[in-house]
Amino acid sequence: MGKVVTFGEIMMRLDPKGYRRFVQAEDFDVSYAGGEANAAVGLVQLGETASFVTKLPAHEVGQAALNAVRRYGVDTSFIVRGGARLGIYFIEKGASQRASKVIYDRAGSALALSSAADYDWDNIFSGADWFHFTGITPALGGELPDICKQACLAARKAKVTVSCDLNYRKKLWSREQAREVMEALMPFVDVCIANEEDAADVFGICAERTDVHKGELNREGYISVARQIHEKYGCARVAITLRGSLSASVNTWGGMLYQNGNAYFSPEYTVQIVDRVGGGDSFGAGLIYALKNGFEPQRAVNLAAAASCLKHTIEKDFNLITLAEAESLAAGNASGRVQR
Amino acid sequence: MGKVVTFGEIMMRLDPKGYRRFVQAEDFDVSYAGGEANAAVGLVQLGETASFVTKLPAHEVGQAALNAVRRYGVDTSFIVRGGARLGIYFIEKGASQRASKVIYDRAGSALALSSAADYDWDNIFSGADWFHFTGITPALGGELPDICKQACLAARKAKVTVSCDLNYRKKLWSREQAREVMEALMPFVDVCIANEEDAADVFGICAERTDVHKGELNREGYISVARQIHEKYGCARVAITLRGSLSASVNTWGGMLYQNGNAYFSPEYTVQIVDRVGGGDSFGAGLIYALKNGFEPQRAVNLAAAASCLKHTIEKDFNLITLAEAESLAAGNASGRVQR
Amino acid sequence: MGKVVTFGEIMMRLDPKGYRRFVQAEDFDVSYAGGEANAAVGLVQLGETASFVTKLPAHEVGQAALNAVRRYGVDTSFIVRGGARLGIYFIEKGASQRASKVIYDRAGSALALSSAADYDWDNIFSGADWFHFTGITPALGGELPDICKQACLAARKAKVTVSCDLNYRKKLWSREQAREVMEALMPFVDVCIANEEDAADVFGICAERTDVHKGELNREGYISVARQIHEKYGCARVAITLRGSLSASVNTWGGMLYQNGNAYFSPEYTVQIVDRVGGGDSFGAGLIYALKNGFEPQRAVNLAAAASCLKHTIEKDFNLITLAEAESLAAGNASGRVQR
Amino acid sequence: MGKVVTFGEIMMRLDPKGYRRFVQAEDFDVSYAGGEANAAVGLVQLGETASFVTKLPAHEVGQAALNAVRRYGVDTSFIVRGGARLGIYFIEKGASQRASKVIYDRAGSALALSSAADYDWDNIFSGADWFHFTGITPALGGELPDICKQACLAARKAKVTVSCDLNYRKKLWSREQAREVMEALMPFVDVCIANEEDAADVFGICAERTDVHKGELNREGYISVARQIHEKYGCARVAITLRGSLSASVNTWGGMLYQNGNAYFSPEYTVQIVDRVGGGDSFGAGLIYALKNGFEPQRAVNLAAAASCLKHTIEKDFNLITLAEAESLAAGNASGRVQR
Amino acid sequence: MGKVVTFGEIMMRLDPKGYRRFVQAEDFDVSYAGGEANAAVGLVQLGETASFVTKLPAHEVGQAALNAVRRYGVDTSFIVRGGARLGIYFIEKGASQRASKVIYDRAGSALALSSAADYDWDNIFSGADWFHFTGITPALGGELPDICKQACLAARKAKVTVSCDLNYRKKLWSREQAREVMEALMPFVDVCIANEEDAADVFGICAERTDVHKGELNREGYISVARQIHEKYGCARVAITLRGSLSASVNTWGGMLYQNGNAYFSPEYTVQIVDRVGGGDSFGAGLIYALKNGFEPQRAVNLAAAASCLKHTIEKDFNLITLAEAESLAAGNASGRVQR
Amino acid sequence: MGKVVTFGEIMMRLDPKGYRRFVQAEDFDVSYAGGEANAAVGLVQLGETASFVTKLPAHEVGQAALNAVRRYGVDTSFIVRGGARLGIYFIEKGASQRASKVIYDRAGSALALSSAADYDWDNIFSGADWFHFTGITPALGGELPDICKQACLAARKAKVTVSCDLNYRKKLWSREQAREVMEALMPFVDVCIANEEDAADVFGICAERTDVHKGELNREGYISVARQIHEKYGCARVAITLRGSLSASVNTWGGMLYQNGNAYFSPEYTVQIVDRVGGGDSFGAGLIYALKNGFEPQRAVNLAAAASCLKHTIEKDFNLITLAEAESLAAGNASGRVQR
Repeated sequence: MGKVVTFGEIMMRLDPKGYRRFVQAEDFDVSYAGGEANAAVGLVQLGETASFVTKLPAHEVGQAALNAVRRYGVDTSFIVRGGARLGIYFIEKGASQRASKVIYDRAGSALALSSAADYDWDNIFSGADWFHFTGITPALGGELPDICKQACLAARKAKVTVSCDLNYRKKLWSREQAREVMEALMPFVDVCIANEEDAADVFGICAERTDVHKGELNREGYISVARQIHEKYGCARVAITLRGSLSASVNTWGGMLYQNGNAYFSPEYTVQIVDRVGGGDSFGAGLIYALKNGFEPQRAVNLAAAASCLKHTIEKDFNLITLAEAESLAAGNASGRVQR
Repeated sequence: MGKVVTFGEIMMRLDPKGYRRFVQAEDFDVSYAGGEANAAVGLVQLGETASFVTKLPAHEVGQAALNAVRRYGVDTSFIVRGGARLGIYFIEKGASQRASKVIYDRAGSALALSSAADYDWDNIFSGADWFHFTGITPALGGELPDICKQACLAARKAKVTVSCDLNYRKKLWSREQAREVMEALMPFVDVCIANEEDAADVFGICAERTDVHKGELNREGYISVARQIHEKYGCARVAITLRGSLSASVNTWGGMLYQNGNAYFSPEYTVQIVDRVGGGDSFGAGLIYALKNGFEPQRAVNLAAAASCLKHTIEKDFNLITLAEAESLAAGNASGRVQR
Repeated sequence: MGKVVTFGEIMMRLDPKGYRRFVQAEDFDVSYAGGEANAAVGLVQLGETASFVTKLPAHEVGQAALNAVRRYGVDTSFIVRGGARLGIYFIEKGASQRASKVIYDRAGSALALSSAADYDWDNIFSGADWFHFTGITPALGGELPDICKQACLAARKAKVTVSCDLNYRKKLWSREQAREVMEALMPFVDVCIANEEDAADVFGICAERTDVHKGELNREGYISVARQIHEKYGCARVAITLRGSLSASVNTWGGMLYQNGNAYFSPEYTVQIVDRVGGGDSFGAGLIYALKNGFEPQRAVNLAAAASCLKHTIEKDFNLITLAEAESLAAGNASGRVQR
Repeated sequence: MGKVVTFGEIMMRLDPKGYRRFVQAEDFDVSYAGGEANAAVGLVQLGETASFVTKLPAHEVGQAALNAVRRYGVDTSFIVRGGARLGIYFIEKGASQRASKVIYDRAGSALALSSAADYDWDNIFSGADWFHFTGITPALGGELPDICKQACLAARKAKVTVSCDLNYRKKLWSREQAREVMEALMPFVDVCIANEEDAADVFGICAERTDVHKGELNREGYISVARQIHEKYGCARVAITLRGSLSASVNTWGGMLYQNGNAYFSPEYTVQIVDRVGGGDSFGAGLIYALKNGFEPQRAVNLAAAASCLKHTIEKDFNLITLAEAESLAAGNASGRVQR
Repeated sequence: MGKVVTFGEIMMRLDPKGYRRFVQAEDFDVSYAGGEANAAVGLVQLGETASFVTKLPAHEVGQAALNAVRRYGVDTSFIVRGGARLGIYFIEKGASQRASKVIYDRAGSALALSSAADYDWDNIFSGADWFHFTGITPALGGELPDICKQACLAARKAKVTVSCDLNYRKKLWSREQAREVMEALMPFVDVCIANEEDAADVFGICAERTDVHKGELNREGYISVARQIHEKYGCARVAITLRGSLSASVNTWGGMLYQNGNAYFSPEYTVQIVDRVGGGDSFGAGLIYALKNGFEPQRAVNLAAAASCLKHTIEKDFNLITLAEAESLAAGNASGRVQR
Repeated sequence: MGKVVTFGEIMMRLDPKGYRRFVQAEDFDVSYAGGEANAAVGLVQLGETASFVTKLPAHEVGQAALNAVRRYGVDTSFIVRGGARLGIYFIEKGASQRASKVIYDRAGSALALSSAADYDWDNIFSGADWFHFTGITPALGGELPDICKQACLAARKAKVTVSCDLNYRKKLWSREQAREVMEALMPFVDVCIANEEDAADVFGICAERTDVHKGELNREGYISVARQIHEKYGCARVAITLRGSLSASVNTWGGMLYQNGNAYFSPEYTVQIVDRVGGGDSFGAGLIYALKNGFEPQRAVNLAAAASCLKHTIEKDFNLITLAEAESLAAGNASGRVQR
């Protein structure tokens, strides 16, 4: 089977230790993260071959970001070097009633200022059979909306399946900008991944009777959103992640896959959170793995949900779990007994 | 508006890392803490101006304690320097059925051995409109009961509101000593803050049908205690914190404000504890903020409860949350969703 | 009263920090642990005198293992020095649905390759009145089954009570090997400690209607297992630990003591786990303490359960709690209120 | 005496732990630093009152930068809040033949994009008698050259002494840009601080027979440079720092003060380096302290050299030494004997 | 140009933090290291393509070792998975008169127990033009002497240059065993790297008037050793590393390359040591780089010496320096001035 | 051979990490230390049996101090439990021209307030043949001068050799107090250990032409001091440690033993300091070991100097080196070559 290509930004992630607030931090954990990098790493852990495409400054900090994905087996041979800076995000971990807080410092990154000439998509897609990106990549602006479109065109030419996680970020662009750009990309998207907020923010597609801030989950509403996306943009599959935020420490988590008019819901997990960032990306990686390997829909969404449930127990963005671990949980083994 | 003055001891706080016990500790987190210092820091984070008064040794360790409150914006210009040592407290963090344990090593501190001549209260209260102290300050003995009385007299002269958190500490003085000293101070106190145990320990004021070790909370009992304090000592307002200790890891938390014959209860929060020390102090800070800014009683106790609920999620004694965060929780936003 | 002798392996334990996975580890906490060392340390904390017998390499890493138990007051004067290596185990801490994982690297340890001539049991048991080992010691192979038998014989000669925690480890030996060896040792065992899986794995003794992976606890089943062990091997007392694994973060925990045809169940605790490794060993230590000090059965199992409940809140294998702490919890004080 | 005002950028400083390279870093020490902030902190430690002026983002990371100087007693009441980001610099510590390496990520900082309207210089200089900035501030571009000029004009109006450390940074501007801007500011500068490279880079003023990369120090050359600066720009005093870089681990260090046609050289120290960043800033702080307090020239340069020699032994940019410590070294006490 | 293949063991390296002794260690830094892995990583940093061949257990600890070299760009596609354990070495860092101490725990590693069938040398050498191993690999025993010979034969067949660093380890084999095995491999070796002790230990080749324990370096002696190796075994080039151990904190370091009857000595560096382990391996990597890229002999030995001098300033075994850094030092830039 | 008994205070030692100053400390390394505890630990590492006598609070912090010496094999069975607090000392590590700084917080410790009735010297000296204390113990005041005298009397009665390290601490007592008390104890002292300052401070015994702050060492002066002590107080042996403080980072170190009218000087070592605290105590331990084991004078002082030279390379007060290591250095092996 061919490789998966993902394209997007990788940032430096800086976390105060433990539950310290920003103003208490005397040191930061440093890791490197971004939606598409996270997905690539997650896919390799599950057993796929994946190549991550981005642009990174030539200096040592850029090198460290490259090394971070290379360490976990992602192909980095198409990463372009150049540009001035690596985007950064700061995150302090919340607990109980106190939310985690993210401060982005990503403007002017090497990727955001990259140009179409930096990427040779035909070459990149040689040997690939899946292309994945998120709505963050075009949201970075500059030439990226165009570059994404070129990538999608090249993917189609190469008969590569395209998946997109909408991932709306209100600090990067307005809803109007997002809708205009994303509507131009959706015709290329075979698998659309979203949460209910994304669909409303980007496409104005809403489901009734669901208030994400209350943690209420509404099965019919999710199906309605997925059906609308499918009908409006033609995506063969629409997947929606279902998060119930009971507190910063405990969430419920699951997913739904809509395909051929049917909706398949995974079990809902209640998770004690170690680090919930990258949860959605890990769902995407699990889903891509499952679909690429021909899982039928229920098994596919179950694997994606199990893999991403486990992500919530792992520090930093990357989902460092194996296929065996995800499948064991998907099979119902949730007791957490010590494995000796 | 004028500044808040708080007066009391600040100690070095030494914590084994994580959940290590004292006998396992190879290093300690070092921070600086004390009821009135905690309140001053909390008030500044909420937007007030606050000045913390104490006495600290002239050496570098004393300087570090001063710097710790200065870092968070507290005025330190009235801190007296001199004396031999800084009080210390050691704390190991409990979990589940294992309680947190505190070992005090505070005898002979610069503050405890300070004399009335160290403090120029008229100068200190210039520009102030609130004075706050806790029962720990007079409990330190020496001249401190007298010094507290002088401070209260000067506060009254300067038309400064006085609040006192009873904070009974059985290792510092007997109930009899506490009652004698505190009864002499209560006539000056406009706002009295306590928990049910304090009132019983210091004043022998009890409410029926409540066993704090069982975590049972009894609304009528609390109202009864507050009313008795009000009636006996004339405090215009009496606030009581309501802690239900389900385990060392999970507590319920809320507060009650008694004013003009009415009792206002905050919502009760269930909190997963990061660090519960300083919880009461942060309630006091929230309440002072609210009353000083003219909040009506229900809103005041709600703000105090929300601010101090959040304190339980923050490492070390200081409540490093903003007014916006406290108000958001008071408004019901407890989902802990990531803030991007 | 005489000392307790325990005999077994002590290994280096290496943990990635916090919840990091093995592949994320940049450093390891290092501690030293093993079932019988854990029990010896636990007993000394409760107030007993204990001597731990093992064989350790003469180099500094072996010395560090010796120092680790000596630090907590265990007598190390019968530890033999020599051999090539110290066994190692790696453990990453699980959370929520993700199980903790142990990787053993213990083959070829100094103990595993030790010979009968290394141990002078008559001398070792001088002044002793209890001998404790677990099924792991004979499972290490080589001469250890014989050495264990010699120790039991010497213990009997010295009128020393013998306790054994079955502790079946499938990576060390097959069920058939275990049964053969353990059945030869059981005639010496006065107090047998097990969990339901152990009894089934080692002796083929099963109870109906219990699925340990589901966390269902079945009182009748446990009594049945204990009775069968008693009847088959003559152990005067059989104790069974009762773990319900709700997740890697939360377990239920308790114990049962079967004696003279009666079964005594401790209360069941729900514990938020800091570190569950060594939980069974700490139950054994609590039980030995209680029986050695003449506790009646209900009080004995309650103490053992309380001591080992608290173990789950303590980092690393050793149960560093005092008798007073265990008795306080056994008396029902589970509120976790700060001890000042 | 009046306060010292310093104006410039404060950045987040991120260091890999110990001697780790950037590509090895799993965590960073975080501190906050910048030439003028460093000088302000150093001045307060010596006993002066200092106010640091800058612009910082309103978010928590900006707050942490503000807190960092406030912690050490610097007045922060004139710090403007707003703008998008805090500049960052990464530094890995060199050793022996391997140089320390700095990567700047400071473009687009709140200060760099600030406007003249952000600063009310007349108000800022109320109560001040010294103004200090470095060549880095105008080098940040935007309106900063103008803002610096306005500050200088206001300083002159307020009869405030002005000092400037040339601090040429080739990554911020070209020599031509630097010369044009700095020549417009020099007429306001009473005390000019430089190293030989700065003078050559900014003003094209050179001394013969000195190769800074060889660590050769040439007294006549330094005097020549100082005299030329004095003659060309009218600065009453010119100070030059003298660094001999034997390796990344060992430097020689001293300074020279040129005043009224005479040159005063401090002793030369050989220092084993803990952290040499901020060395020049600490020289400036020591010199300002000495001149402000009326030290005669030899004593002034000796104090500045001693204070900054000690800086090389202190982690991070701030020179956290006391006047007594600097004076003790200046008096010749360099034995490093333990102070009990 | 083709890739470099290296073949050997990679171990887990465990270091107490800082200068702590083994018996003081509460945690260990964990890294992964081995002579040939070190060389491969060093080569990639210099700009080469390198593939590291070894056998690693399938478990997560084995994976972590693989990831460690993959992170730095080494090809891992020929690493065989299987076997029971990863070798381990413990190291405590010395200082001044106290030597660093290494404790090996490497017996029974996956590589040591691997068999010839695990390696497909013809495939491995496809696209390669250099093969490097050290004397440690055959010293591990089992089939490894034969496997090394097969690798050499395959290398010759593929017209691949072979280099070998003698690296005698007395704990792994006797001098007699070493000589027998190494003499059978030397006919394949084009470039032999050694230190004087190695040559004496393995081949009995000595130079007069040099006592390595005194740190005396004797140029004629080194030339004599190199000439003898060349004459006896036909290696076209012989390189010798020259270490003068002044103390555990300061060493002198340089190298010599013997080629066509001429000896080329690098400059001698005096280095303040951060971590000297892997110094020899980094010399080998530098030399291979230089020879593979056609450097003339003096420049080659200078680059190798400069690269490995810098290694002594870098934590852990891998030499994480760039070609530009090595060339800068080789060009004489040793001042350690901060690079901004 | 019999055991060594040492008697004195053990304190908690708190160090900021690395080279951080007190005002920068966010955490402290915690260890436990004191002159006589250090000596006891050092003696056990060399192979002696030693018992440390002190009084410690019953709480967990007191227990941790006890465990600290027990960990390294010191007998703790005569440690008395009780009293209010453990003495504390804070130390920040100096570098280069910046001296290390110690802040003591030891007043009111359990030992300082202990009474004669706490110690049963006849029992303590059963099986002992050496008693060691330092001048710090009587300097703590209260009953300690008397207790020390009682200990000396009991030692004499038990035919136990007595050694005393003068260790004058000006913060604990005046020279006059010291002289009065120490002169009463000297008649019991067989082996007196001092540095030149001690002799001058305590006994007014001076040597000409030596200025300890300049690091000048004067052999004749030291001999003169030793001879005077011997003549005045009758000590059979007088040993003097010789420290030359070149800087906080580099010292020279050696010792002299005066016996039977002859003076034996050890070699002088130049040491790069990791931690110099406890250097004198480790000299004492080495000397006691050597004299107790019948070394002739030159060999004895050489061993003591070598052992204590190595101490300077070890973190915290305890000298964790073996006899073999000390003897190897005493034999001249100072190259610091890696021991594999």
